[in-house]
Amino acid sequence: MIKYPNGDKFEIHQSSRKKKMPIDISISSANRGMNLEEDINLSNDYYLTKNILLITKRPTPINVVKVDYSKGARITDAFFQKQSTTDYNGVYQGRYIDFEAKSTKNRTSFPLANISSHQINHLKHVIQFGGIAFFIIQFEFYNEVYLLDASYVIDFYENGKRKSIPFFQIKEKGCLIVQGYNPRLNYLDAIDDMYFKK
Amino acid sequence: MIKYPNGDKFEIHQSSRKKKMPIDISISSANRGMNLEEDINLSNDYYLTKNILLITKRPTPINVVKVDYSKGARITDAFFQKQSTTDYNGVYQGRYIDFEAKSTKNRTSFPLANISSHQINHLKHVIQFGGIAFFIIQFEFYNEVYLLDASYVIDFYENGKRKSIPFFQIKEKGCLIVQGYNPRLNYLDAIDDMYFKK
Repeated sequence: MIKYPNGDKFEIHQSSRKKKMPIDISISSANRGMNLEEDINLSNDYYLTKNILLITKRPTPINVVKVDYSKGARITDAFFQKQSTTDYNGVYQGRYIDFEAKSTKNRTSFPLANISSHQINHLKHVIQFGGIAFFIIQFEFYNEVYLLDASYVIDFYENGKRKSIPFFQIKEKGCLIVQGYNPRLNYLDAIDDMYFKK
Repeated sequence: MIKYPNGDKFEIHQSSRKKKMPIDISISSANRGMNLEEDINLSNDYYLTKNILLITKRPTPINVVKVDYSKGARITDAFFQKQSTTDYNGVYQGRYIDFEAKSTKNRTSFPLANISSHQINHLKHVIQFGGIAFFIIQFEFYNEVYLLDASYVIDFYENGKRKSIPFFQIKEKGCLIVQGYNPRLNYLDAIDDMYFKK
């Protein structure tokens, strides 16, 4: 349950998404857990404004094939490339932070299929060189978001017998991220819990 | 002067660039100091292979206007956006590293005109949150490359009376980066000197 700025409390049930609602509530509902990336970006803006940490999103790599300079360097042919690293990185208390955010509609496990071996390699390097590496994983069905240390995912990716990490194991090994209005995803508390506990 | 893998020494003078040369030497010459970005990328590859540090280049941000899905998500209209952060960041000994690379043909100073206020703000945040921030500045005429701490550039940008940093001050405050075959730019030694001296 979260408080909206007007003070109303509003609890969202999965079923309520299908009902027709007044526009403001349906927007709130649509925002909730429906766009993990947007939520992370908003949270990052909040943390930066509050002078806490700096996380930036890497732009999507695009391979430019043709540029029309007669139109002021307008790109007329290009294609998306696969991200060979992760989506986010930055700095907190001098430490290097690197993470990938993934969302799943699956109710029982997080499928590893949409993590590339390049990303796994990248995260292994981050850990090797002393950085902090994790995944932010959203289970859309439960509207729950977890921070899970990358080493756990890497181990599962390379040595696991299953092609997915069971939900109950993520609950056990990961850290539930508290959701609210601002920051939308308080993943900093999870970082503190996981990596900065005295 | 650098040694090429075949053992030959070859010193480049500015005037020699205009002369017609055998193809292999002209390629070496073209590579030398003519493409700072490529030299940094190659050096980063070297450092990663040697398990020393991880630096990645942020993709150029592109604003996609139109995508033709009938051709398999081919981008048919897009334009380049200005980088609001820096080109490079990564991790070394757990610390967050962030830098921008710039090249100038100017012989007497480094013009600040091609640094955006967004980049200055970004680097201020990096320093504020305990990261390591610097510029790699190449003077093409001398074929010299310097690592200069970002705080110095920020101070000049915000408080300096000139719109450029004199070359002699960069020589004084910066750290000359040793050039070689592999890594092309040994900027790690400069990082160690500037930020990790005991």
